[in-house]
Amino acid sequence: MATLQDIGLSAAINILSAIAFLIAFAFLRLQPINDRVYFPKWYLKGVRSSPSRGGNIMSKFVNLDMRSYVKFLGWMPAALKMPEPELIEHAGLDSAVFLRIYLIGLKIFVPMAILAFAILVPVNWTNDTLEKSKVNYSDIDKLSISNIPLGSERFWTHLVMAYVFTFWTFFVLYKEYHKVATMRLDFLASERRRPDQFTVLVRSIPPDPDESISELTEHFFLVNHPDHYLTHQVVHNANKLAKLVKEKKKNRNWLDYYLLKYERKPDTKPTCKTGFLGLWGAKVDAIEYYTKKIEELSKEEELERERVRKDPKSVIPAAFVSFKTRWGAAVCAQTQQTRNPTMWLTEWAPEPRDVYWNNLSIPFVSLTIRKLIVGVAFFFLTFFYVGPVLFVQSLANIEGIEKAAPFLKPLIEFRIIKSFIQGFLPGIVLKIFLILLPTILMFMCKFEGFVCTSVLERKSAFKYYFFLVINVFLVSVIGGSALDQLNTFIHQSANDIPRIIGVSIPMRATFFITYIMVDGWAGVAGEILRLKPLIIFHLKNFFLVKTEKDRQEAMDPGSIGFDSSEPRIQLYFLLGLVYAVVTPFLLPFIIVFFALAYVVYRHQIINVYNQEYESGAAFWPSVHGRIITALIISQLLLLGLISSKGMEQSTPVLLVLPVLTIWFYYFCKHRFESAFLKFPLQEAMMKDTLEKAREPNLDLKGYLLNAYIHPVFKGGDDDSDDELLIIDGSNNAEVLVPTKRQSRRNTPVPSKHNGESPPSLPDLSREL
Amino acid sequence: MATLQDIGLSAAINILSAIAFLIAFAFLRLQPINDRVYFPKWYLKGVRSSPSRGGNIMSKFVNLDMRSYVKFLGWMPAALKMPEPELIEHAGLDSAVFLRIYLIGLKIFVPMAILAFAILVPVNWTNDTLEKSKVNYSDIDKLSISNIPLGSERFWTHLVMAYVFTFWTFFVLYKEYHKVATMRLDFLASERRRPDQFTVLVRSIPPDPDESISELTEHFFLVNHPDHYLTHQVVHNANKLAKLVKEKKKNRNWLDYYLLKYERKPDTKPTCKTGFLGLWGAKVDAIEYYTKKIEELSKEEELERERVRKDPKSVIPAAFVSFKTRWGAAVCAQTQQTRNPTMWLTEWAPEPRDVYWNNLSIPFVSLTIRKLIVGVAFFFLTFFYVGPVLFVQSLANIEGIEKAAPFLKPLIEFRIIKSFIQGFLPGIVLKIFLILLPTILMFMCKFEGFVCTSVLERKSAFKYYFFLVINVFLVSVIGGSALDQLNTFIHQSANDIPRIIGVSIPMRATFFITYIMVDGWAGVAGEILRLKPLIIFHLKNFFLVKTEKDRQEAMDPGSIGFDSSEPRIQLYFLLGLVYAVVTPFLLPFIIVFFALAYVVYRHQIINVYNQEYESGAAFWPSVHGRIITALIISQLLLLGLISSKGMEQSTPVLLVLPVLTIWFYYFCKHRFESAFLKFPLQEAMMKDTLEKAREPNLDLKGYLLNAYIHPVFKGGDDDSDDELLIIDGSNNAEVLVPTKRQSRRNTPVPSKHNGESPPSLPDLSREL
Repeated sequence: MATLQDIGLSAAINILSAIAFLIAFAFLRLQPINDRVYFPKWYLKGVRSSPSRGGNIMSKFVNLDMRSYVKFLGWMPAALKMPEPELIEHAGLDSAVFLRIYLIGLKIFVPMAILAFAILVPVNWTNDTLEKSKVNYSDIDKLSISNIPLGSERFWTHLVMAYVFTFWTFFVLYKEYHKVATMRLDFLASERRRPDQFTVLVRSIPPDPDESISELTEHFFLVNHPDHYLTHQVVHNANKLAKLVKEKKKNRNWLDYYLLKYERKPDTKPTCKTGFLGLWGAKVDAIEYYTKKIEELSKEEELERERVRKDPKSVIPAAFVSFKTRWGAAVCAQTQQTRNPTMWLTEWAPEPRDVYWNNLSIPFVSLTIRKLIVGVAFFFLTFFYVGPVLFVQSLANIEGIEKAAPFLKPLIEFRIIKSFIQGFLPGIVLKIFLILLPTILMFMCKFEGFVCTSVLERKSAFKYYFFLVINVFLVSVIGGSALDQLNTFIHQSANDIPRIIGVSIPMRATFFITYIMVDGWAGVAGEILRLKPLIIFHLKNFFLVKTEKDRQEAMDPGSIGFDSSEPRIQLYFLLGLVYAVVTPFLLPFIIVFFALAYVVYRHQIINVYNQEYESGAAFWPSVHGRIITALIISQLLLLGLISSKGMEQSTPVLLVLPVLTIWFYYFCKHRFESAFLKFPLQEAMMKDTLEKAREPNLDLKGYLLNAYIHPVFKGGDDDSDDELLIIDGSNNAEVLVPTKRQSRRNTPVPSKHNGESPPSLPDLSREL
Repeated sequence: MATLQDIGLSAAINILSAIAFLIAFAFLRLQPINDRVYFPKWYLKGVRSSPSRGGNIMSKFVNLDMRSYVKFLGWMPAALKMPEPELIEHAGLDSAVFLRIYLIGLKIFVPMAILAFAILVPVNWTNDTLEKSKVNYSDIDKLSISNIPLGSERFWTHLVMAYVFTFWTFFVLYKEYHKVATMRLDFLASERRRPDQFTVLVRSIPPDPDESISELTEHFFLVNHPDHYLTHQVVHNANKLAKLVKEKKKNRNWLDYYLLKYERKPDTKPTCKTGFLGLWGAKVDAIEYYTKKIEELSKEEELERERVRKDPKSVIPAAFVSFKTRWGAAVCAQTQQTRNPTMWLTEWAPEPRDVYWNNLSIPFVSLTIRKLIVGVAFFFLTFFYVGPVLFVQSLANIEGIEKAAPFLKPLIEFRIIKSFIQGFLPGIVLKIFLILLPTILMFMCKFEGFVCTSVLERKSAFKYYFFLVINVFLVSVIGGSALDQLNTFIHQSANDIPRIIGVSIPMRATFFITYIMVDGWAGVAGEILRLKPLIIFHLKNFFLVKTEKDRQEAMDPGSIGFDSSEPRIQLYFLLGLVYAVVTPFLLPFIIVFFALAYVVYRHQIINVYNQEYESGAAFWPSVHGRIITALIISQLLLLGLISSKGMEQSTPVLLVLPVLTIWFYYFCKHRFESAFLKFPLQEAMMKDTLEKAREPNLDLKGYLLNAYIHPVFKGGDDDSDDELLIIDGSNNAEVLVPTKRQSRRNTPVPSKHNGESPPSLPDLSREL
C-alpha cells in the first residue's frame, strides 16, 4: 500500500516534470524559428507571416531579447484574456464549448472539495478504526471512509453528502446544458450564409431503369418539394482518384527531398531503393525514379478523372440537394420522403469540409451488417483487452515483481526505486495501453460508415469512453485489489459486483492519484510543448521546404481531437464523482488537473489548433450523458460500499439516487436535446426573411453550384487540405490588419472546400 | 402435482362449459329480441332495423323457425367468410390488424408444434430419468425436458430446436410487420378526405401579453408557414360543461324511468329518496324532483356554456391548426417550430373522435411530473401486488389448504373435488385478480395526460403487459414452486434468477395448461355470449326505452378493448415460446386458443364491436415488440434451465440467441417503424395533387371549420355519442340497400363528431 510519502515523491516528480515542460515551452515558443509550431493558427488565418523583418540573421532563428524570458508563465493570463464571444469567433463554437467541459469540472469539483474537506474529512479523521485494526493503512486512508467503524451512525453524513453532491451536479449540468444549447442556437442564428444551411444530403436513391440518378433526383424533388427545390449535386465515387492524388503527392514529396539533397550536394546523385519502405530492392537514381513515377501517376490520374466524370456507374446513389430557402431545407431534412423508410433518406448536409467522402459510396443496405460486425468486434476488443492490462498491472505491484523476478529484489527494496515503482509505474503502464486505441476505434467507426468527420469523432469518443470505464476504471479497481482473491471473485454473482467494487474503491485511491498526476498533470503540460509536431516541423523544414507554400504545408496545427481527448476528461469526472464521498483527498488533484488543462487547452485553441470542422457543439448531449453515466456509477458503487459497512438499512435511501439521476437525464434530454438535432422552422424563416430583405437579387444557385464537389475535383494537381484552407483564408475580401487580436476576422474558419468564397471565382484562388 | 387425469378433468369441464356457452349463444342470437345485442354493428351502420315485419307478435321476440337451430355453429364459417379487404372497409384497419395477432399465433405455433411433436417429444419420451428418480411426476413430465438425464447429449436437440424456433419466429414476425406496414400505408393512401389529414395539434402555445391565443396562433403560423396555413380552431376547457351535460343526462334517464313507471301504474305516484344512491334521505315525488333538477342543471349548463364561450381564460394554450394541403400538415407535424422545444409543439392531430378532450387542458409543464408520479405508482402497484397473489396461490395448493384448514381435509381428499381444486382453482384465482386491473391502469394513463384515446389504450396495454409478465408469469412460476424453499430463494443473487426460474418452468406446465383452458377456451367462448351486455340491454329496454332512439342508445356494442385484450394474448405468446422447447405438450392448448379466439373475435368484430377510433394499426410496433420480449425471456429461461442440467458448455451457444433477437428487433424497427410514426411527403403530395385535379373548387376551410370542436358544443341538449354516430351514418348520401352484405358502405365508420359529413349541414342532421 502506497504511503503518503510515496504520493509525495510521485507528486514531486510529476510537478517537476510539468514545470520542466512549461519552462521548455516558455523557452521554445519565444524562438522565431518555432513560431510556426506554436502559433500556427495565426498563420492559417493569414494574420502572421514568417519572421522576415530586418536585423541580423540570428534574430530570425533565436530570440535574443532577454526580457521576454523572465515571465515564463506569461502565456497563461494571455490565454485567459480572450473573452468567450471572441473565442467563438476566433476558433469556432466547438472549441469554445469544448473548453467548457473543463470549466464544468471546476464548477462541480471545487465546491465539492470545499464541502468534503469541511465536513467529510473531519468526520473520517476523528476515528481510530484503522489504528485499531491490523490492516496496513496509509495516512490517506485515515481521511477516507475506511476509517469509519462498521455500522457507525457517522455514515449518515456520507449519505447526506451523496445527495448534496448529486443535486449540485444536477444543478451545474442543467445550467450548462441550457447555456450550451442557447450558445448553439445563437451561433447558428448569427452565422453567415453557408452552403449547408440550404442543403440536404439525400442517400439511398433507388435505381431507375429510365433515368440517371441526377435526373431522378431532380424530378423527385421537383414533384415533392415544388416550391422549394433549387438544385442538386450528385456524388461521384472518387475514392480511387483520391488515392492516386495522395500517392502522387507522397511521391512528389520524395522528389522534393531528393532534389533539395542534390542541390545541396551537387556532386553525388542521390539514389534510393525501390523495394519495401526503401529498405531493399534495386538501387536507382532517385530523382529520375520519382520523376517517372509521378508522370505515370499523372497519366493514371487523368484517366481516372475522366472515367469518374463520364462513367454513369461512378455516380453514387446519393446527392446533395439544395433548396431556395433555409426553411425548405429544414423541412426536407426533418421529414420522411417516401413510404419506404430505407429510400430517399434525407439528413442535414454536413459542412462541406466535414464530409467524409470515402464513406458516401458505401451502399446503404450494407450499413446494418457493418454495424453488427463493428459491434461484435468492439465487444471483443473491450473484453479481451482486460487480460493484458491485468497481467501488467500485477507486475506493477511491488510484491508481484518480486515474485516474478526474485533477482530484482535487492534493487526494488531500495527506498526510492520502490516508491517510484509504486507511485509511477502503474500509471505509465495504463498510459501506454491507451495510446494505440483511438486509432483502432476511429478505424472501426469509419468502417461502420458514418459520413461526417464530426459524427465519426463522436461515435469514436463513445467507444473510447466505454473502453476506458471497463478497462481502466473497473479493471484497475477490481484487478488490482482482487488479484490475490481472484479465485474467490470469479465465483461471485452479478448481484455482489457493486459491493465488491465498492469495497475496493477506497483501497485504490492512491493508485488513481498517481494516475491523475502522470496522465493529467504531466500529460497536459506535455501537450503544450508539442514535442512531436516540433520535431516533425523542423525535419520537414530542413528536408522538404523550398518555398513559403511548402513551409505552410509543413505546419501541423493539429486539432482538439474530440474522439480521444473528451473520453479522457470524462475519466476524471468519473474518478472525481466516485471518490468525492469515499476519499475526498483525491479531489484537489482533479481540480489541479482541470485548472491546468483549461489554461493549456485555451492557449492551444487560441494559438495552435486548427479546427477541421464546425459542428456547432453537436457533441454536447454525449458529454452530458457521459457525466450522468459517471454519476450513476458513483452512486451504485457507494451503495455497494456502504452496504458492506453494516449499513444495509441505507440501501433504499441510496437507491433513490440513481432513479432520480435517470429521470434527470430524460428531463434534460427532453428539454434540450432537440436543439442539437433539429433546426427550428422559426429560426430558418427569420434568416430567410432577413436575407431576402438585404439581398433580394442574390444568386443562390451560383453560390451553391460547386459547394459540394469532391475535393479532388476542386484543387489542381497538388491539391492539399492545408493549402486549400490557406487559400480560402487569404482569399477573404476583408483586409487583414496584423495587430495583436485579429480574431474578429473570418471566423469560423471558412470551409476549406470552398465554403464561404463565392463560387464564381474558386479556380482563381486555387491557382495562387 | 397434477396428473394427466387432473388435466383431463379440467379439459372436460372447460370444453363442456365452452360448448355450453356456444350453444347458449347459438340459441340466443337467433331470437329477434336479442338482435340488438348480437348484431349492434349492423344497426349502427343503418343496415339493419328493429324487426317490425308483420306476423304475430310472438315472432317479434322469439324465433320459431326450427331449422335455424340445427346448425348451432353456423356462425363460424360465416365469420370466416368475409375477405380481409372487405373487413377493413367494414370495421376499419385497427380491427382487421388486431385479428392478425391471433393469426400470427397460429402461424408461429402450428409449425412449432408439429416439429416439436415430431422431434422433441420422442427424444424426451425415450428416457427413464423420471422413472428412476424418486420424484413425483406426471405423464406430462415424461414428454418434457425433465425426462432427460443430467448432462445428456440429447440436450443438443433442444438447443438446435431453440435456434429453429427462434428463426421461425423471426421469419413470421418480419413477414407480418412488413405486411401490416404495407396495409397501413395503403389504408392511409386510399382513405377519403378526413379533417385530421390536414390538421396538426399544437400544444404549449406561450402566453402573450398583447394577443389572445387565437390571434397569436394565427400570426405565428402565417409567418412560419406562409404558403400552407389555412385556419385554426382554439380549444376550450369544457370539462366542467361536459360534466354538467353528463349529469343532466343521467337525471333525464331517471326521469324517463319514473315517467314510464307512472305510465304503467298511474295510480301510485313514484317516489324516491334524495340521499346517497337513493338509499336514504327524504322521500319525495320522483317525477317532480327530477324535473326540477333537470331544470336547474339546464340553467347551470347554459351559464357555463356562455362562460366557456366568452371567457378568454377558458381557452387552453392549444389549438388545432389546419393547412391548405396534406403536405403542409405533414411538414408542420414532423418539424420543430421554435428554438424552445417545449413550446409550439406540433403533432399529428388525432381523428376528431379519437381526441381525449379532458386531457387537452392539462398544462404542458406538469406532464413530466405526472409521468414521474405515475411511474412510481405503477412500480409499487406491480411489485406490491405480488404479495396477495402469492398468498392466494399458496392456498390453491392442495397441501396448503389442508394445512390452513384441516377440517376441510375429508372433503378435499374426495377424488373429484381434489382434481377440481388442482386443475381449476389456481386459474380462477388469477383471473379474479386481473379483472380490476385494466381500469386502474387506464386511470393512470389518463392521469399521465395523453390526448388521444388510441394512445391511452396503447400505453395502458404496455403497463398491463408488464404487470402480467411480473405478476402472472413470473410469480406463478417462482411463487408456486418455490413456496417451500422461499427462504433459501430470497438469498439468491440476481445472477441465479434465470436458472431458478428456468428450473421451475417444466414443473409449472400443468398449471399453465389449466390457465389456458380457463382463461383462454372458456373465456373466449364466454366472450361471444355477451352475458353482461345482454342483461343490461334487456333491463334498459324494459325500464327506459320509449322510442326507437332510446333503443338505439340502449345498445352497448362495446369495442375490442386493445388495452386489456392485447396483453392477454401476449401472455399466450409468452407461454407458447417458453414452453415450446421445454414442454411441447402445452402447444396444442395454445393453438386451440388462438384458433377459437380468432373465429370468435372475427365474428364479434363483424357483428358486434363498434370501433371508437381508427388509428390505422398504430399499435403494431408494440405488438411486435412484446412478442420479441417474450422471445428473449424464453431464451434466457432456457439458458438457465439447460445450464442447470449439467450442460454449462452450452451457455455461449444459447447466449447468441438473445443478442440476435435484440439485433432483429432493431433491424425491424429501423425498417418498418417509421411507417407508424411519420407521414411520407410523397404520399401527401400525391393525394394533394389528385384532389386538386378532381375537386379544384373544394371549400376546404368550410370543410374543416367545425371538425375539431369539443363535442359538448356540437350536439343539442341531449347530445349523446351513440346518437350522433347513428345520425352521421344515416346522413350518408349514398342509398343504403339492406341486403346481406352492406359492408362496402360508409366504412370506416365516419367520425361521430362530424367527421365525414359536410359541415354545412350538421345541425340538420342533429335534429333528426
